Amino acid sequence: MEQGLEGVIAATTRLSSVDGQGGKLILAGYAVEDLAPSASFEEVAYLLLMGQLPNSTELEAFTRRLSALRELPDIAIEVLKQAARREVPPMDALRMAVPLLSLTTNGDPLDLALSAIAAFPTIVGAYARLLKGLSPVAPEQSLTHAAHYLHQLTGEVPSPEQAWGLETYLNTVCDHGLNASTFAARVIISTGSDVISAITGAVGALKGPLHGGAPGPALDMVFDIGEPDRAEPYLRDKLARGERLMGFGHRVYRVRDPRADVLGQAASRFYSSSSDRKLYDLARTVETTALKLLQERKPDRRLDTNVEFYTALLLHGLGIPKDFFTPTFAVGRVLGWSAHCIEQIQNGRLIRPQSEYVGATDLHYKDNCARDETNSVSL
Amino acid sequence: MEQGLEGVIAATTRLSSVDGQGGKLILAGYAVEDLAPSASFEEVAYLLLMGQLPNSTELEAFTRRLSALRELPDIAIEVLKQAARREVPPMDALRMAVPLLSLTTNGDPLDLALSAIAAFPTIVGAYARLLKGLSPVAPEQSLTHAAHYLHQLTGEVPSPEQAWGLETYLNTVCDHGLNASTFAARVIISTGSDVISAITGAVGALKGPLHGGAPGPALDMVFDIGEPDRAEPYLRDKLARGERLMGFGHRVYRVRDPRADVLGQAASRFYSSSSDRKLYDLARTVETTALKLLQERKPDRRLDTNVEFYTALLLHGLGIPKDFFTPTFAVGRVLGWSAHCIEQIQNGRLIRPQSEYVGATDLHYKDNCARDETNSVSL
Repeated sequence: MEQGLEGVIAATTRLSSVDGQGGKLILAGYAVEDLAPSASFEEVAYLLLMGQLPNSTELEAFTRRLSALRELPDIAIEVLKQAARREVPPMDALRMAVPLLSLTTNGDPLDLALSAIAAFPTIVGAYARLLKGLSPVAPEQSLTHAAHYLHQLTGEVPSPEQAWGLETYLNTVCDHGLNASTFAARVIISTGSDVISAITGAVGALKGPLHGGAPGPALDMVFDIGEPDRAEPYLRDKLARGERLMGFGHRVYRVRDPRADVLGQAASRFYSSSSDRKLYDLARTVETTALKLLQERKPDRRLDTNVEFYTALLLHGLGIPKDFFTPTFAVGRVLGWSAHCIEQIQNGRLIRPQSEYVGATDLHYKDNCARDETNSVSL
Repeated sequence: MEQGLEGVIAATTRLSSVDGQGGKLILAGYAVEDLAPSASFEEVAYLLLMGQLPNSTELEAFTRRLSALRELPDIAIEVLKQAARREVPPMDALRMAVPLLSLTTNGDPLDLALSAIAAFPTIVGAYARLLKGLSPVAPEQSLTHAAHYLHQLTGEVPSPEQAWGLETYLNTVCDHGLNASTFAARVIISTGSDVISAITGAVGALKGPLHGGAPGPALDMVFDIGEPDRAEPYLRDKLARGERLMGFGHRVYRVRDPRADVLGQAASRFYSSSSDRKLYDLARTVETTALKLLQERKPDRRLDTNVEFYTALLLHGLGIPKDFFTPTFAVGRVLGWSAHCIEQIQNGRLIRPQSEYVGATDLHYKDNCARDETNSVSL
């Protein structure tokens, strides 16, 4: 009862396999550490949507098709402007703009999915600029998907290292089993509804703080520590006060989260060519110290650095503001939502569990009216 | 596997109890046939949101609070205009406008719920007018909720009979266990997201044709038959061709759906004061004939007139166009979605089932690149 369907199997999927005991994440047949740092986002999108990696001809056609869908309907920009004027949180702004995509898109589920995948970077990038008082920039079709997002955010064409760093991140987080937002998308599409409706619902679910994927606080601690030699006293204090160290441990993975490895290596490679090496070194010191102290306190429990820690480090290095970490996660995860929708359309059926009624069953409307009349008289 | 969670209990609730075997629907303690035709929508809303019927003082304050929230943000009207220009289906237009409510509303979950409940009639009514090339009318605070909706649709203050007919309908459909849209709302809110996000997701799920609640086709048949003496040959033909009779039978109720009784009586009462008595008599002839023929064919299986049949009859009598039947259902059901959100916030936890991975696990990215290079050479 009320167990949140933990352990209940609600769908079969060919999209991703999350093995928390073994520390493995498979994306449509490929280990995340094999696929994410090497493939382009477009290849991964093709893989998840079509079931296998594309050959070069297929990839070229797919890339062209996807990049042609970056433009937003004018009214979506207008909505984002109004949202920015009221400083609406970015995830709410995204949830306002996404449903408008069906103004300019129709077609089969794949068309709708590609529209959403292509437009998410435009929406999020435009909104980040509007919040800073800047104008959105026109989408540039010639850029790769990852570069397109950074261009939308900054107005600049990113360096290859920046585009690669973001692409690795998007590939790494594009799908992760039946998390709450993906499940929401599958429930919605299971009624025979459309992909934009399902993705809109998923955005709403991802917004919730219990969803996971919001890597903000992990880096706050690093900034708060500020200097490598403050790491140990700071962390000892925190643990002594019984506080949790953000960035360590995961609900599902009992051993090392493979995404943490991929993103840790991506951060290392990215910062090696970046001017902000100092932050990276600080973060690594904080990490080493935190793991040492956690090990001291609970020698029998292995707590590893989690995906949030490296995500925060990498996204910060790419110049993405902290309140845009979750929308950036959405830019990656919209691929998984889309692929799950298409899979659910192909082989699923209506998802319709039951509730158990625990209330009264024998009340009568007229009794209440009588009660009220008695009350009125006695007043 | 892939069974759509049928029979799995995903939540406990005090809001409604659907007993398909016994033919009973309880709304927060009251049998639907006791509550729906007698209580006002405002009373039912208070009951579901607050857990008990209001006394007169509570009802007055609640009614004032709800009716003050009918106005839409300007940009929502602008979005509906753009949608109407493109003849977007009404449920998509609703799903575009609802998320914009968080532009003008914040506050606790109850505030957001009341904003949505109050604004649904404004959105749906405005969109129905815009689709016909008419301007939306300003919401009138002094009207009851049911009258407000009809006023938004037609621009006229409805008769007491019309308002009562719609109110009975809204009360009857306001909640019905853990249907797919309500479940979508609970999944979304279970992440700690907000009520507007959850309701937006639910609108998307309700749109799907497998959801149920779309009573259009039932009345098509009645119109198609046209004259009482054509009913029997028409229906015999249809059954002989192996076609289903829309408006009879229900997935859940094995005996008579209690909502069908309530709405059948409401239709009878409504049409007795209406000029369109002829349609009502025709519909009743079609019903009697259909039940007789179904009984002849399958004497051992009891197939009753379902809620869609009377819904279509009643809503048609109220002047609601067929493509606005599902949005009108949403005007009622948004109450249940809201109440389930508040209940989920109070006593639920993250809803996060599992998927079973059935794909490959041993693919390697480099193998694919090699395959492609081989392909390229051989071309």
